[in-house]
Amino acid sequence: MLMEKNCTNFIEVLASSAPVPGGGGASAYVGVIGMALGSMVANLTLGKKKYDDVQADIKNLLSKADDIQKTLMDLVEKDAEVFEPLSKAYGLPNNNDEERLYKNKRMEDCLKLACSVPIKIMETAVEAIILQEELAEKGTKIALSDVGVGVLFCKSALMGASLNVFINTKLMKDRIYAEEINAGVEKMLEASGKRADAVYEKVLKSLK
Amino acid sequence: MLMEKNCTNFIEVLASSAPVPGGGGASAYVGVIGMALGSMVANLTLGKKKYDDVQADIKNLLSKADDIQKTLMDLVEKDAEVFEPLSKAYGLPNNNDEERLYKNKRMEDCLKLACSVPIKIMETAVEAIILQEELAEKGTKIALSDVGVGVLFCKSALMGASLNVFINTKLMKDRIYAEEINAGVEKMLEASGKRADAVYEKVLKSLK
Repeated sequence: MLMEKNCTNFIEVLASSAPVPGGGGASAYVGVIGMALGSMVANLTLGKKKYDDVQADIKNLLSKADDIQKTLMDLVEKDAEVFEPLSKAYGLPNNNDEERLYKNKRMEDCLKLACSVPIKIMETAVEAIILQEELAEKGTKIALSDVGVGVLFCKSALMGASLNVFINTKLMKDRIYAEEINAGVEKMLEASGKRADAVYEKVLKSLK
Repeated sequence: MLMEKNCTNFIEVLASSAPVPGGGGASAYVGVIGMALGSMVANLTLGKKKYDDVQADIKNLLSKADDIQKTLMDLVEKDAEVFEPLSKAYGLPNNNDEERLYKNKRMEDCLKLACSVPIKIMETAVEAIILQEELAEKGTKIALSDVGVGVLFCKSALMGASLNVFINTKLMKDRIYAEEINAGVEKMLEASGKRADAVYEKVLKSLK
């Protein structure tokens, strides 16, 4: 399990030529780091008299942030799992029509599977950005910079995962399916990218 | 040592209300992840016949990328070290002129120290972005999306660290010193932010 490695070892295996983890898993992990910064801000707000009126919201937010972190850590592992069959399909022989037909079919199935994880990373990053937006409003002001860093990392997870969708959809023969996936990805990037930028700008403005 | 924790425990302590690690250390770590993706691409390029003419460059790049990762991992620890005295200075009494004078002096010194680490994170992220730019040109095309994700994370480290400079310079009494620091930070954000965006766009274009 990748998340059981120590931080230094995780980096060593990421930096190596080993097939996993790659950019997809790394994106999920950066999303976890971003959401964890959000939880830190929420934890620093908990029980503070100055923030008495938002305590119920902060508790609710903390529970959602915890779920998001668990989901994203799970996706670090899942991204590694779905890369393996794709990596094998790449290596299949294609010396004759029969082999080519089989390889094409396997590639297509594995590409679809390999796309599913970064799409889920993106969907989870979208939820994380919404939580950071709420935190920028309700969280303790002493740790506002951490909300800015948090939302930045959640947006990076969103964008990083999108590249891992595009690299797979590019290779698909079924262009209708591929374009449909790409359109959904673009929509998430556009809407949640802007939302994240607005939170970041709000934080930046208050720090300068 | 934070980098000796396993990935899940690092997230737990980051998400907690414990004073460290915070946004500065998290930024350094996201920079390590970005640079490690760069090393992965370099490692996948090593020894490949198709990339015969860039083998010496790739070896050189790999060695620099390794140094950058070590520096950034060291900065994760250092950011925690410099936060401790600042956290103590915040808590000093200020009931009379003598106490106020002493507290102001300690705060100023600790703020300067606390700025020095995110500045170093930014300087290292700038070097990392330059390496990713070279990789986008010379690295194996089969892992081009990982260069895109890598440069994105190095830029995030740069921006995340900048917020951790701003939150400290904002509190400094010595405004000349503070504005000088801020100007240097803005310069790095502007130049290297654009450079990172260009690499990202180049990767994105090739994937679509």
